[in-house]
Amino acid sequence: KLTPCSISSVKIKGFMNDYLETMLKVTIPSQYELLESTGRIDNFRIASGKKEGSFKGLVFNDSDVYKWLEAASYALLFTNDDDLKEKIDNTIKEVKDAQEDNGYLNTYFMFERKKERWTDLATKHELYCAGHLIQAAIAHKRVTGEDTLFDVAIKFADLIVDTFGPDKKRGAPGHPEIEMALVELYRETKNQKYLNLAKYFLEERGNGYASTYRFFNPEYYIDHKPFKELDEMTGHAVRMLYLCTGATDIYLETGDEEIFSTIERLWENLVTKKMYITGGAGSRYEGESFGEDYELPNRRAYTETCAAIASYMWNYRMFLVTGEGKYVDLMELVLYNGLLSGISIDGKHYFYVNPLEDRGKKRRQPWYECACCPPNISRTLTSFPGYIYTTSDEGVYINLYENSQANIIYKEKEVKITQETDYPWDGKIRIIVSTEVIDPFSLFLRIPSWANVFDITVDGEKLNKNLEKGFLKIFKPWKGPHEIILNLPMDIKFVESHPFVRENLDKVALKRGPMVYCIEKADNKEGDVWNYLIDLNEKIEPENYQINSKRVIKLKAKGYHEDIQNWEGRLYSQSGRVKGEKKKIDINLIPYFAWANREEGPMAVWIRK
Amino acid sequence: KLTPCSISSVKIKGFMNDYLETMLKVTIPSQYELLESTGRIDNFRIASGKKEGSFKGLVFNDSDVYKWLEAASYALLFTNDDDLKEKIDNTIKEVKDAQEDNGYLNTYFMFERKKERWTDLATKHELYCAGHLIQAAIAHKRVTGEDTLFDVAIKFADLIVDTFGPDKKRGAPGHPEIEMALVELYRETKNQKYLNLAKYFLEERGNGYASTYRFFNPEYYIDHKPFKELDEMTGHAVRMLYLCTGATDIYLETGDEEIFSTIERLWENLVTKKMYITGGAGSRYEGESFGEDYELPNRRAYTETCAAIASYMWNYRMFLVTGEGKYVDLMELVLYNGLLSGISIDGKHYFYVNPLEDRGKKRRQPWYECACCPPNISRTLTSFPGYIYTTSDEGVYINLYENSQANIIYKEKEVKITQETDYPWDGKIRIIVSTEVIDPFSLFLRIPSWANVFDITVDGEKLNKNLEKGFLKIFKPWKGPHEIILNLPMDIKFVESHPFVRENLDKVALKRGPMVYCIEKADNKEGDVWNYLIDLNEKIEPENYQINSKRVIKLKAKGYHEDIQNWEGRLYSQSGRVKGEKKKIDINLIPYFAWANREEGPMAVWIRK
Repeated sequence: KLTPCSISSVKIKGFMNDYLETMLKVTIPSQYELLESTGRIDNFRIASGKKEGSFKGLVFNDSDVYKWLEAASYALLFTNDDDLKEKIDNTIKEVKDAQEDNGYLNTYFMFERKKERWTDLATKHELYCAGHLIQAAIAHKRVTGEDTLFDVAIKFADLIVDTFGPDKKRGAPGHPEIEMALVELYRETKNQKYLNLAKYFLEERGNGYASTYRFFNPEYYIDHKPFKELDEMTGHAVRMLYLCTGATDIYLETGDEEIFSTIERLWENLVTKKMYITGGAGSRYEGESFGEDYELPNRRAYTETCAAIASYMWNYRMFLVTGEGKYVDLMELVLYNGLLSGISIDGKHYFYVNPLEDRGKKRRQPWYECACCPPNISRTLTSFPGYIYTTSDEGVYINLYENSQANIIYKEKEVKITQETDYPWDGKIRIIVSTEVIDPFSLFLRIPSWANVFDITVDGEKLNKNLEKGFLKIFKPWKGPHEIILNLPMDIKFVESHPFVRENLDKVALKRGPMVYCIEKADNKEGDVWNYLIDLNEKIEPENYQINSKRVIKLKAKGYHEDIQNWEGRLYSQSGRVKGEKKKIDINLIPYFAWANREEGPMAVWIRK
Repeated sequence: KLTPCSISSVKIKGFMNDYLETMLKVTIPSQYELLESTGRIDNFRIASGKKEGSFKGLVFNDSDVYKWLEAASYALLFTNDDDLKEKIDNTIKEVKDAQEDNGYLNTYFMFERKKERWTDLATKHELYCAGHLIQAAIAHKRVTGEDTLFDVAIKFADLIVDTFGPDKKRGAPGHPEIEMALVELYRETKNQKYLNLAKYFLEERGNGYASTYRFFNPEYYIDHKPFKELDEMTGHAVRMLYLCTGATDIYLETGDEEIFSTIERLWENLVTKKMYITGGAGSRYEGESFGEDYELPNRRAYTETCAAIASYMWNYRMFLVTGEGKYVDLMELVLYNGLLSGISIDGKHYFYVNPLEDRGKKRRQPWYECACCPPNISRTLTSFPGYIYTTSDEGVYINLYENSQANIIYKEKEVKITQETDYPWDGKIRIIVSTEVIDPFSLFLRIPSWANVFDITVDGEKLNKNLEKGFLKIFKPWKGPHEIILNLPMDIKFVESHPFVRENLDKVALKRGPMVYCIEKADNKEGDVWNYLIDLNEKIEPENYQINSKRVIKLKAKGYHEDIQNWEGRLYSQSGRVKGEKKKIDINLIPYFAWANREEGPMAVWIRK
């Protein structure tokens, strides 16, 4: 079992820091404006009686405010912006003032809807919103040391504890989320009752409390069977993935092996049968849900940004449980691809749905009526530094690579680790380690599974490259300073998928390191990228490139453009009858996360070979 | 403009007669039992006060009873079954007794819901049910000469005429259907007011009367713009196709050229960008709707059976307008493939959704809560003989081929036409024509577009083969008897699709004559049919075959089975790394309509080459 490091222990300066800067300068301020202009904060003012009117928007709109508060709290670690501090404090004041004396807090269930409280756990998101309140409050307390929001959360959490249980009101959340929050609250307070309630909510699933037949069947809510009997990722993708994440948290604190065998089984199903190459999950628009095994349509991929975030969170917890690098490999895959694709380079346009193939009509939007994804991205990217390192009794894990400086606390002493790197564009990482720890301990360097070969030296000496659980373990005294040079080969690879993903047959996708690439019209003026064929025998060159202001590595490949003019007006034809010339062309590929930042046009991840 | 022939003018004896026999013996009786056991007829009894209780089921359940009445009425043309006659009469009695004095008739809008009448045209299907009542009533009157149901329909139609109009209550049906019915009622009664109302309903679309934002946006209801401005098949597929069918009926009677240019534009969009090779339509589960151009997923094809039926009806009307064989080609394609796939060989199991690829989990059901398709199939198949011939001033059209005997009325005299054929399994058709008509007239034989070459003799003499609008026109005196021998080559063809249907790239489908084929586990014991590759250079042999009791022609092809065992546990892999042996095998293909009649197993229409 590993221990996370605090967000503040790492100062990032590389690829992910550009996103962090954008969060501070653009995203978090603009999201605040949107919370105001769309009435999300007003809902609290109305609930507290400060403002006339009635609740506006979707039932879970409170959670957008809480997610923003969580993100904004993390942001305070990186900025002394008084304006931001004031916005946070004011928002917390609005939240606090809307809370009832007994602790209840949900701006939808006020006035004439008071009597409906806790009557529709399946669709009304009361516990979901409470979960986000608790998470925001913990973040705010940890960052600022203040109890303003935390007291609010505790008061509501205590009401929920008093309300639900096997001998009290029975219930389970239609949208999992509060499980993670309650476990974190247990960690923060050491009060067992929060952990017990999280366990209760998990175990109460499958009994019909979390679902209704009104809109979807119980599988949508993952309430069709008891959690421990689940063997397939089904239903609403974000619900399912949040549930798994919460269950992993519960396992981390309880050690209930039946939970672990369940989540391992589910994880296996996800990654071997239901995950997109971008790390995205959720194949169907209807019910925003998982499909059958190998049902991974590209054009109609749903792959909600929140599902990618959930997968990132879940894999992190699986790593904390096991110390297995494969889970961090997936965090990395999701992060750089299916998660970052959810936000534009300018930091104020979002994808809710992340297709792998499009005619170019899908465009990022400045906001959504159902705006779960935008502030979810914010809290994920502002907390990113906390994911880079973890510790165990044995030593320090370097999970993710990013140009950065860190002071990791290991056995109550500092371990300073500097990473100098242009990762993820370049695989060379220079790591400087120094510490007051006298005794030898292990440094664990993740070797990503995409790195078939790699080079490493410690203070100039070559190392044995035996991996343990996907990590290279270096056990030695680290007083230092010591210099590690790790070279991960950023080879460009053609990837194919399991033949049951029948629409990917005879097509390949390109990866370079952790990055998945795509072809988009904006970089390919010749014909239509949907008619491109890639030549697997030609060498592919990485090149420096700019997409809007963003520096990326593009790939230059060779291939063919097939003229399909003769198909005009036809949909089916006898095989071989409709012919078009194939013209040799250069094909430019860009990282998938960066698509749809420029003019409209066709895009595809999977390319005909 | 062509004139339909009556259903009773043709006695069929071939492939389609097997279905007709099944309708009479199995389908129509069993559907009646289901209408009773599911409370659909009871709803009428409850409405008339004969029975206690409240309305049961979905708001449009009345329409299932009406569709059954229409089918059962046609059935009376082929059987003297007193029991069926009694069931029809009894059902009509229940319907009649539920009608209010003012003519209103809808069992959902009774008692406490009376006040909701005509308040939710978008979702409550009042006009849709009325349309099916009118169609059933016309069918019943034409077959039996009785007015029992017709009087009910007229009374309700008159109420609707009195209720709706530009100067009365404004409205348009959320689900088109009544347009067709009103035009047919105009044809039956010559009363212009019914045609006017149909026109009114068509022209009122786009003004928000047919839609609501509650569940779907106006495009779902095809109410997002005026009908004459539509340029793409969008929204709910059955709604869209019923609308086009009704609009074509209105054009047939009014000659409004703007309607015709609209439906021609929409038809072109359908057949060149949004139609499955099976003739099926509707790409998305969400909203049971059309997708974007070329969005034709195989596994998640929605292709509702009712949409296939609608396409069949629409193409027939387009043919009546134009005399173009291409529309009959499509009727034939839809009928033998995407429409017949909706019913099992045993005649009592149905597909609502008709995928083109499956792991075998989708099985035909004995009924559906939303049971629109089963009785829709019944009324289509029992009226089939009426689609085989049409007439015009110039002569008689042979639209469809089927072993049969007909007495066609042309210029008020009989033309006897016998077809001796094993069509669609064999392309040889011997046609005997004799008539009292002395003057020469034209016989038009459709030459299907799939028949690249064909042979024809009349009384032993070879004919000029120039086609006009897809028909071979033979102008001569037909007193006869004369013998025509038509040979349509039942060649087996590999078909490919437009490259923008990206999941069909590098795959082919097989057709023989009008039949689309598929591979299914039941006929292919070697490995998994999803891993089959077909060899385009090997000869393919047609063979007689039985699927359950049904005689079909299967195809025996050569190809390969690829062993994918090494993919176990992987979803993505570096290209070329995971290898499996390819083993030469025989591949058995069966007609698509016949799949899922035996044990569960994978199926695919599009096969890797």
